[in-house]
This record gives sequence, structure tokens and C-alpha cells, in this order.
Amino acid sequence: MLSKDMINLGQVRSVIREMFEYGNKRAAEIGRENVFDYSLGNPSVPAPEIVNETLIDLLKNEDPVAIHSYSSAPGDPTVRAAIANNLNKEYGTDFSAGNIYITSGAAAALSITFKALAEENDEFIVFAPFFPEYRVFIENTGAKLKMVKCREDDFQIDFEALKNALNKNTKAVVINSPCNPSGVVFNEDTISKLAAVLSDAEKEFGHPIFLISDEPYRELVYDNITVPFVPNYYENTIVCYSFSKSLSIPGERIGYILISNKSTSPELIFEAVAGAGRALGYVCASSLFQKLIPVCMGKTADISIYKKNRDLLCDALTEYGYTLPSPDGAFYLFIKALENDANRFCENAKKFELLLVPGDSFGYPGYVRISYCVSTEQIIKSLPAFKKLADSYRNGEF
Amino acid sequence: MLSKDMINLGQVRSVIREMFEYGNKRAAEIGRENVFDYSLGNPSVPAPEIVNETLIDLLKNEDPVAIHSYSSAPGDPTVRAAIANNLNKEYGTDFSAGNIYITSGAAAALSITFKALAEENDEFIVFAPFFPEYRVFIENTGAKLKMVKCREDDFQIDFEALKNALNKNTKAVVINSPCNPSGVVFNEDTISKLAAVLSDAEKEFGHPIFLISDEPYRELVYDNITVPFVPNYYENTIVCYSFSKSLSIPGERIGYILISNKSTSPELIFEAVAGAGRALGYVCASSLFQKLIPVCMGKTADISIYKKNRDLLCDALTEYGYTLPSPDGAFYLFIKALENDANRFCENAKKFELLLVPGDSFGYPGYVRISYCVSTEQIIKSLPAFKKLADSYRNGEF
Repeated sequence: MLSKDMINLGQVRSVIREMFEYGNKRAAEIGRENVFDYSLGNPSVPAPEIVNETLIDLLKNEDPVAIHSYSSAPGDPTVRAAIANNLNKEYGTDFSAGNIYITSGAAAALSITFKALAEENDEFIVFAPFFPEYRVFIENTGAKLKMVKCREDDFQIDFEALKNALNKNTKAVVINSPCNPSGVVFNEDTISKLAAVLSDAEKEFGHPIFLISDEPYRELVYDNITVPFVPNYYENTIVCYSFSKSLSIPGERIGYILISNKSTSPELIFEAVAGAGRALGYVCASSLFQKLIPVCMGKTADISIYKKNRDLLCDALTEYGYTLPSPDGAFYLFIKALENDANRFCENAKKFELLLVPGDSFGYPGYVRISYCVSTEQIIKSLPAFKKLADSYRNGEF
Repeated sequence: MLSKDMINLGQVRSVIREMFEYGNKRAAEIGRENVFDYSLGNPSVPAPEIVNETLIDLLKNEDPVAIHSYSSAPGDPTVRAAIANNLNKEYGTDFSAGNIYITSGAAAALSITFKALAEENDEFIVFAPFFPEYRVFIENTGAKLKMVKCREDDFQIDFEALKNALNKNTKAVVINSPCNPSGVVFNEDTISKLAAVLSDAEKEFGHPIFLISDEPYRELVYDNITVPFVPNYYENTIVCYSFSKSLSIPGERIGYILISNKSTSPELIFEAVAGAGRALGYVCASSLFQKLIPVCMGKTADISIYKKNRDLLCDALTEYGYTLPSPDGAFYLFIKALENDANRFCENAKKFELLLVPGDSFGYPGYVRISYCVSTEQIIKSLPAFKKLADSYRNGEF
């Protein structure tokens, strides 16, 4: 009677969502302040004040019909030009409005991009740990997701494993740096090597291999870490960007696809993207929020709060004996579970009211994700629980 | 290198869009005020004042983090409940929040619904003339669109043709009343007969046949015409609704899917809808615009302007000898071309700076669509052109 695949997708709650629901239940029992919920990646700092100020200004002063009208499907041309100019200034590129397709957030950008690219028998390579919805979007096109695990010592790319995974069916490789769930940033050495490996593979297999760079956390980096701007390293790059995290407006669904002007046939890729947007039912991203972008682009929410949270947690967890890859960006820590089974470890953590997400759902068993986009108060209050959890393992109680 | 289907979809501009672009070109040549552009269905009246007032109030007074946060995928539970309550009050139904899935407009609602329902070999029946994107959304699921032409005398359903089209592969029938492009409202007699025919077919073929009611124009009706509320006539109804036209906010992408509580397994349908939303890359509809709905639901933009436009045009066109089906709703007239080839008729209309859209793209050759969501001034100024066009045909000049 209905699509079985869709029922399955709708029924199988993500592990993240399950943990979040458990947290709500537990909060009702013992009080919200006593549950240390680290499950969701929902920004905890407000948008910078300029966001609401600009929205109010637009609502008061713009033409009352135009402000809420349809934009053209790829977005308002002046907004697209503003995005291109901003990138050019920041990264020394020479993009134009024609390289920008505005989307309803990064999820739309990704699902549209996969749909635009995918042909029969195609494979998309993702690096574990990875954002679980990649699988949903890729498999929806009929293509295959192929997983390559990052090196455990530093969570950078394992190039031998990548080379083994590349073949004539590889349509694209997906990266997500800063990474959800590991918080790791792919450094310049990694991006340069990746570009070289993909260029070689393009020559070997005789067709373009796209590098899809999923960048919702581009600006969320700490300690003067630089995130390499991928289109400057590899020509066939498609960037999927979102303003959700940088501007703390995740519910408003605004982002873009950038098709590098140096890629093979950017105009043709743009047309396929436009077609995929149509097929998936996207009409345009919110007109009001599109008009916000030229004013607010380059601004960020107060990310110093995330840095403070990260430092507090990292220092304490390291002291308690936990290990984790370098948490340079996003708002996640990816700690090694204190036993092989991360699911059981998360169950034990619940006994101390700590809600963590097992790495299995990110394709990386044995680790757990901590989303530190929470109040600093929660972090401070939860530290004894993390200590007790570590002590219990040390004492052989689990 | 790319999906050929998606390139085709992206390259083939809709006839509507072609005509709109021609209008822009022509406006640059002879002045916007001398081009009578009736091509686009973009609301021409502003949103009611309460829309921007409510948005500003929300931006000033709501919690600054919560206002732009993710909502759950089916939408904010209080907004869903408010929509259900509003429908219950209006139509005497007993829906709850669990029957409502908030979407990014009607296009998302339709594409998600088709995706949720479609299985291999499925057929979806649409009544011509029909909104051309139905084909895009339906074919994207792998299912087949089957077209049944409306009766030419009144543009109601041709039930003999419908009965011939129904078979064991029919998954659903799509209606759009008030109709884009005909402006016709399916009357109570039509909806009752349709319900009876579909109930019989369900028994004959032994499985549910859904009635998908696409209702972006539900409130846009004139002369005390009543639009039958479809879920009150047929149990397996799924309504796809949008606030784009009623509130004149088409660029903001906010609408909903209503799964009738009387349908076969509403919970299972809801899960398939949730799965399809995920697969297509939807995360949630704009949080800010969701929060607008409980305040503004039931309000409309000033539709008296559309009625004035319609009356002016209808009276004049009828006087000039044009014929058209009863234009009871939406903001479209569907006039019979003055020759068999509507495309050639539209080319001739251009000579008088009249931009009309041939019915061929709506599956109904021989007719043309006039979108009268324009300024009343344009209507008045264009009447001599419509007269000259009719005269030219009468005089054998074309």
C-alpha cells in the first residue's frame, strides 16, 4: 500500500533522536537540570543580534509584496552575487552568481547534489565517522555509499584505504571538515594529498571524480586553526554550505551549493542541480532569509561559548583518562569508549545521567559522540559524572 | 558524468518561465507598463498586515535561541495541533496534531506524498488540465502519471474516462480544486461521485486508492462558491496544503500534509511521509514561519482585488467573444484559443503584447491560461489588446 523503504526510513528513529527522547523522559522524572544531555547538535547560542535586527528591518521597509514573493529557483540573483563576492574576498577565488545555487540548508544542498550527479552503478565514498543522513540521501538516488574509515591515530584520511576504494564507478568523494561527529579538521596536508589522489584517479578512470565538501561548520574552529578552502585545492569541487551553525539559525533552512567555476562543465552541473532541485520538490529557499544573507554573511554567533565548553570538557575528560582525536572544530568531541562496545558504554553512561551517542551510527564503532553545544553550566555540573563513569570502569564495576 | 534526467529537467525551462523571460526582455525594450504579462502565478497582493506584525513580534519577544532552532521534522507539535484544531472548527472534523506533517510549501507536500506512496508499477491519475510539476514529482518516484481529461463543457470530472483509467495499479488520484490553470472548482456533486467511484474501485481492486487533494487555492473563491472539504467525502484522503496563496507568502515555503484520521492506517502513512521527507532532504519547515501559522491561520490577503480583476477580465473577454469555463476560484482564467493551435494563438497574442501560456503544458491543448494576479491597472490597459486579438481572428488576419 505504501513505499516500504519510506516506512522503514520513517520508523527507524535515529539513535540520536532515541537518546534525545530518553533525555526528555528522564528530565520529566528527575528534573531537566539533572540530566546531562549531550545527544543533539542543536546550536545553543543565539543568532548574532544583527540577524533579528536585519529581519525586522526587512519586514518594516521592503516592498510588502516582494519581501515574501517567490525567488527564482536558484535564488535571488543579487543574493547569489553577494555570496560569490564574499567568497572571492575571503578566499581569492573568482566565482560569480552563476556558481551559486541557494538551498534550504545543507541537507537540501546534499540531497540535490547527490541526485544531480548519480547515474546507474555509481558509488559515493564517505569517510567514517560520517553524518548518517549521507546514506539516506545517497541511497535515495539509487547509488551506493562506500565507506572508508579514517585513521584511528588522528582521524585524518587513510589514503591507502581510499585508493583501494576508488574505482571506475566512483562518482564523488564526500568530506565534512570540521567533522560531525569527530570535531576533527582535515589539515592542508590531507586536502592536498586528497586532491592529488583524486586527480590521479580521474586520469586513471577517464572521467571526473567530484569532491563534495559538506561545510556547515566551516567557521566553527578554535585556536587559530585554518580550514583549507577546498575549491582552491581541487577543481571538481562542489561545496554544500549552510548558515545554520555559523548564524545559529538551523530551523530556518538556508544554505547554498557552490559549483566551482574550475570544475568540468560548471554550467552543465548547474543545470543538473536545478533539475534535481525541481525533482525533489524544492521551489526556492525562504525569500525573507535569502535577503538576510548579504547583510549577515561573514558574521557568526558567539562561538567563544563553544570554545569555553570544549576546553572545560576536554581538559577534564583527558584528566579522567579518556582519549579523543584533536577537537579543532564544530561542537563535537568523539571520545573512545572505555570498552569495545560503544552501545553498552552509552548504556552505562546513562546510569550517571550522561546521554552520549554511540559511534556505530556514524560508521565508527568503539567511540561515542558528545555534542557540547549546551550550556556551560551543564558541562560543569556533568564533570563528576564523567569522572565516576571512568572510575567505575577502572574499578571493574562494568 | 551527471544524471541525464536531471540535466533535462534543469535545461527544459517551463513554457511559463519562457514566457516570463520574454516579458522581461520585452519590458526592457518598450517599458514594463506596455507589456501585458499574464504568465506567472505569483500573488500580486501583499500579505495581510498581521503577517509582518506577528513576525516582528516573534523576533522581538520569543526566546532568541528557540525562535530559529530546529523543530522536529513533522513540525512544532503546538503548531500542528493548532492547524488540526482550526480545521476541526472549520469543517467539523476530529483531526489531531498526529494527522499533520508541516512542509516547506505544497510542492514539498506533494513530492513527499508521492514518494511515500509510490511502489513499483504504480500509477497516479491526474485530471487535465493540471499543474505540470505533478509529472516531475510523480516520475521522480519511478511511478507513472496517467492523465484523464476533464469534460470540455464544464471542466468537471469525466467519470467514464476516469473509470476506464482506474486499474489494479492505481495508487492515487490527484485533484486540484480550485484548479490551476482552469480556475474551476469541483462542485459537491463531482466530489461525491468521485468518492463513490473510488470506493467502488477500492473494493474491486482490493486495496486503498488514495485521493490526494492539492489545495493551495482553497480560500481563493468568489461569489459565495463553496469548496467541498474533501476528507469529509472520502476516507483515504491526503490533503496537500500551502499558505502561499491564502497569506501571500509564496517565497516562504510553508504548508502541510493532512493525513485523514479516517484513512487506512493513518499512523503508517504518517511514517512513510516522515521517511519520504527524510529521503528528499527536508529537515523541517522554517521555524519562524511555523510559529506564524497559529496566529494567522484563517486570515487571508485581500482577495477582493483578485475578484475585481476577474470580473473586469471575464466581462470584457466574454463581450469580445472569448469562451471559458466558470472561473470560480484561484487567480486563473482558461480561455479557449481562437484557433486549434494554442501555441500559435499565444504567438499571435504577443503581437499585441499579451503574454499568455498555452494549455498544452497543462495537458489541455486548444486553451490558454491567463494569470490575473496582476495589477488592476494592467487589466484595464490590456483590454483593447484582447479586443484587437479577437478582431484580428474575426477578420481573418491570422
